[in-house]
Amino acid sequence: EIAQRVAELFTSTALTGRRIMLTAGPTWEAIDPVRGITNHSSGMMGYALAQAAAEAGAQVTLISGPTSLTKPERVTSVDVVSACDMHNAVMERIAEQDIFIGVAAVADYRPVDSADQKIKKNADEMTITMVKNPDILADVANLEHAPFCVGFAAETHDVVDYARGKLERKKLDLIAANHVGGSETGFGVPDNAISLISRDRVLDLPKQSKHALARRLIIEIADSYQKKNEKQT
Amino acid sequence: EIAQRVAELFTSTALTGRRIMLTAGPTWEAIDPVRGITNHSSGMMGYALAQAAAEAGAQVTLISGPTSLTKPERVTSVDVVSACDMHNAVMERIAEQDIFIGVAAVADYRPVDSADQKIKKNADEMTITMVKNPDILADVANLEHAPFCVGFAAETHDVVDYARGKLERKKLDLIAANHVGGSETGFGVPDNAISLISRDRVLDLPKQSKHALARRLIIEIADSYQKKNEKQT
Repeated sequence: EIAQRVAELFTSTALTGRRIMLTAGPTWEAIDPVRGITNHSSGMMGYALAQAAAEAGAQVTLISGPTSLTKPERVTSVDVVSACDMHNAVMERIAEQDIFIGVAAVADYRPVDSADQKIKKNADEMTITMVKNPDILADVANLEHAPFCVGFAAETHDVVDYARGKLERKKLDLIAANHVGGSETGFGVPDNAISLISRDRVLDLPKQSKHALARRLIIEIADSYQKKNEKQT
Repeated sequence: EIAQRVAELFTSTALTGRRIMLTAGPTWEAIDPVRGITNHSSGMMGYALAQAAAEAGAQVTLISGPTSLTKPERVTSVDVVSACDMHNAVMERIAEQDIFIGVAAVADYRPVDSADQKIKKNADEMTITMVKNPDILADVANLEHAPFCVGFAAETHDVVDYARGKLERKKLDLIAANHVGGSETGFGVPDNAISLISRDRVLDLPKQSKHALARRLIIEIADSYQKKNEKQT
């Protein structure tokens, strides 16, 4: 039944003409020209979703932090480095989007301007003072004419509870909760397990390749988007 | 003339039986299970040197921080994450080495133990307290029976002056000074320009592929190593 729905969607026009923007990858918050703060995101999930959305007929814009991945075909992409760069790139282009999927692992904080940053290289200790980054997803969801908003949550504990809290707090339509292992060496693993959460349900998608998962998620997102539109019209 | 020397070395037994250890790549200093401090090192230069050393007949041990590179053939490799891990991996195996080449961009500092780290996610500001990491290169060079020690310096300004200071301070035999661009987006560029500095000279090697440069550097390192040994015996 699932196989059939996949086949239908990917030969149908369910997303034809829909404009989808995704963010993907980590952000890089520079401490100085050499060092920075980042995270383990490889960008694979976001890239896989961008590809699946393009295959389903959508016009896709991918705003990507630094990754070593090849850009999917038939996707308009914009490369950014920091969370502030990403915020700007999203906001410049958000007005024309129908659906926004925030997959990027955006840094919560950035070091204060490096000119102000006094790094004493010979000191036994050093401190880095950080300030809060803009919340891209919340800013998009709070727009007067907000697109259909999908967030991602990557947590090590209480994944579903935390994700539902984020869904409500940020006024999202859907949130995909990603079970992150505690391993320090979990760089860019190809498989993923996700719970897709809306206000009224939780859909558990078992561990599978990010490409298979991306197609499933695009089906569910398209479905929810359509239902929301039907209600409103 | 250079081409001839390259050909000679790579068909000769100049490094046969010599044991060379290299460190390569960045280190990852975890802030929490998701975030960490790292740097722009791709590991390409260290991996290229490991390969060139193996091709020149050496027994090569490569201690590598997290990279997405494929390990060179005929090289024994050990994967590490943090600077402390790398220090341990080096020290366990250093006694049997003839030559040590520290190419890794090792973090100077690491966040204090994450159990002690109080990250207030909702605060407007946060500070990360960091403590000094062990200096792997200095610890190796200060061993009673230290191998021939080659360091790398990646700086944005006063590259040669800084590198010579490091050579003397850390008691190295050679240091390769790498001219790092100021661009934030310089992730893993394939070309490199290097000045190779000893106590009595500076050899400037122009911008070229990291593989070509690696072969040149291995020739120069083998040469200096041999000269030092001839003096001592």
